[in-house]
Amino acid sequence: MKLARFRPAGGEIAELGVLRGEALDAFVPFSGLGAALPGGEAPKDLRVCLAWSSAERKAVAEAARTAEAHPLSEGTLLAPLKPEKCLAIGLNYKAHAEEFGGTVAPCPTVFTKQVSCITGPFAPIHRPRVSEALDYEGEMVLVIGKRCRHVPEARALEVVGAYCVGNDVSVRDWQLQTPQFTMGKSFDTHGPIGPYLTTADEINDPQALNLQTWVNGELRQESSTALMIFSCAQLIAHLSTAFTLEPGDMIFTGTPAGIGHAMKPPAYLKVGDRVRVAVEGLGEIENVVVAEPETTALPFPAA
Amino acid sequence: MKLARFRPAGGEIAELGVLRGEALDAFVPFSGLGAALPGGEAPKDLRVCLAWSSAERKAVAEAARTAEAHPLSEGTLLAPLKPEKCLAIGLNYKAHAEEFGGTVAPCPTVFTKQVSCITGPFAPIHRPRVSEALDYEGEMVLVIGKRCRHVPEARALEVVGAYCVGNDVSVRDWQLQTPQFTMGKSFDTHGPIGPYLTTADEINDPQALNLQTWVNGELRQESSTALMIFSCAQLIAHLSTAFTLEPGDMIFTGTPAGIGHAMKPPAYLKVGDRVRVAVEGLGEIENVVVAEPETTALPFPAA
Repeated sequence: MKLARFRPAGGEIAELGVLRGEALDAFVPFSGLGAALPGGEAPKDLRVCLAWSSAERKAVAEAARTAEAHPLSEGTLLAPLKPEKCLAIGLNYKAHAEEFGGTVAPCPTVFTKQVSCITGPFAPIHRPRVSEALDYEGEMVLVIGKRCRHVPEARALEVVGAYCVGNDVSVRDWQLQTPQFTMGKSFDTHGPIGPYLTTADEINDPQALNLQTWVNGELRQESSTALMIFSCAQLIAHLSTAFTLEPGDMIFTGTPAGIGHAMKPPAYLKVGDRVRVAVEGLGEIENVVVAEPETTALPFPAA
Repeated sequence: MKLARFRPAGGEIAELGVLRGEALDAFVPFSGLGAALPGGEAPKDLRVCLAWSSAERKAVAEAARTAEAHPLSEGTLLAPLKPEKCLAIGLNYKAHAEEFGGTVAPCPTVFTKQVSCITGPFAPIHRPRVSEALDYEGEMVLVIGKRCRHVPEARALEVVGAYCVGNDVSVRDWQLQTPQFTMGKSFDTHGPIGPYLTTADEINDPQALNLQTWVNGELRQESSTALMIFSCAQLIAHLSTAFTLEPGDMIFTGTPAGIGHAMKPPAYLKVGDRVRVAVEGLGEIENVVVAEPETTALPFPAA
C-alpha cells in the first residue's frame, strides 16, 4: 500500500489517503472511504496507518479501487509525515566512506536531521545565503511502525512500518565546522522525503533495492542497499539500545558514493539544479534548488 | 512567572499551571483561573504561555494569588513540555573543554538530545544495561518563545521565552564510539528538565547565573553562565542561521568543568546516586539513578 499526503491544486488543506493503480497516478482520500477504514474513521496522521493489519490494508485497498480519486497531476504530494525523531546514518556504504575521507567504523555513525528540515518530495531546496557548499545524498529511509526498544536484530524488520525515499541534503562547510555534523545536516528544506510511504509488506528485502541520484539528468549515484555496511535490522537494533523508537520515527540509512563534495573539483548544487532520487519500489522524489528567499528571516526582517 | 506541569498524588492526569508564593510551594492549575486567562481558556501546552504579554502574565499571576492550589508536596512536578527540537552545546565552558581533552572551537559544537529522552525534574535516571560509564552534566537550558530564523545576535534574547535547569546525562563510552556524540546523549530518561519554566522577563542577565551540581550531596560542578564561551544570544544567532526555531524548542547551553568522566579515576554514576543541579533563579532538579528496568524491552520482552 502506498500512503500519501496530497494537496489538491488551489486547495489549502492537505488530505491523507492512498495511491491507486499500476501507475500510481491517482490519489484516493481517506475521507471517501468511510466504513472500509479501520474504526470507520479517517486517520488524522499517516503514522496511524502503519499499525493496520494486513486484512485492514486489504479492505482499504479494495474500497479505494472504486472510490473517487484526484489525478496526481491535479495537485502536489507532500511530505507523508513529520517524525518526532529523524535519525541519520553517516558513512554506511564503503565506497562513500572512502570518498568522504573516512574509514569503515566498527559501529554506525549516527547523527540527527532536525524535524524542522523535513519537506515535500517535490518542494524546493533552499541554497543557503551563508554557504555555496550545498550537496545531495540520495538515501533509502525507513519509517518505524511499532513503538520499540532493545529490538533484537533478528526481529528488527518487524518494527518497520514503511519505507520511502529521502535526500539527506548537506551543507558541507557547516557540516565540517566542528566534528559534530549537526549544523550542516538540517538547514530548513534540507530533508525532502516521499513521494509516499510504501508499507513494509510490499518490500521483500530492504537490502536488495537499487538506489540512484541524478543532477539535471546526469546519473551521480548508483548503488544498491545490498551494499550498506550496517543493514536496516542492525541499525534498528543499535539505535533502539539507547532510544525508544516511536511510530513515524525515521532513519535515513546512509548514502552511497557519488556526492558532489567528492568530485574533483567539487560539484556543489547551484540555483536551478534539479536533484532526483529513486529507490527501487519506493518511487522517486525531485527537488529544484532555489536561492534562499529573503522572507526566511523571522521575526526580525533582514535589514 | 513560574510555569509548571504537575501531577497530583494519586492522579493520572498532568495539569498545567503556575507556582505561587515566595517559597514556590503551591501549584495553581490553569483550570481554576477561567476569565483571567488570555482567551479565557486553559492552555493545553505550556509553550502557549511563552507568547503571553507582560499584561497577560500579570493578570494570570494576580488571579493565581487567591485561586485554589495544590501544595507541591502533594504531587510531582513533571517535565514542563516536550520540545520539537532539543539542541545541545558541547564544550561551551573553557575548563570543561580542557578536562574533556578538547580545545576551544571557533564556533559552537552542536549536537542533539533526542526528544524521547526528556524526563521529569525528579524522575529516575536509568543506568543503561549496556554501559557503566553514566555521567551527569548540569546545564542551563533556554526555551524558545517565538518562531524565529536568522536572528541577529543583538536581538536574540527577544526570542527566548523561558529558562530552566537541565541535566545532559551522558553515556561516555557510547558518546565516544564514533566522532558523533549522538548515541551517548539520549538514552531514555537522560534528559531531565525543570523543575518549572521561568519566563524570560524574570531573568535580567542569563549570563550571570550560578550553576551547581551535586552527587550525593558532594559539590561536583560550580560555575557561572558568565563563563560560557558562546553566550545564549550567540548560540541562538548561530543555530537560527540554519534552522527555524519553534516555540518550545530547547537549547542545552553546555556544562562547566567537574564531570565524573574527567575525575582520576573516573567517577561514573552508580545505582542509588542522587544528582542535583541548581541554576540561580531557575530552581533545582534532583534525579536518582536506578538500574534500567527489564520492562524497557518493547515489543519483544527480553529473553
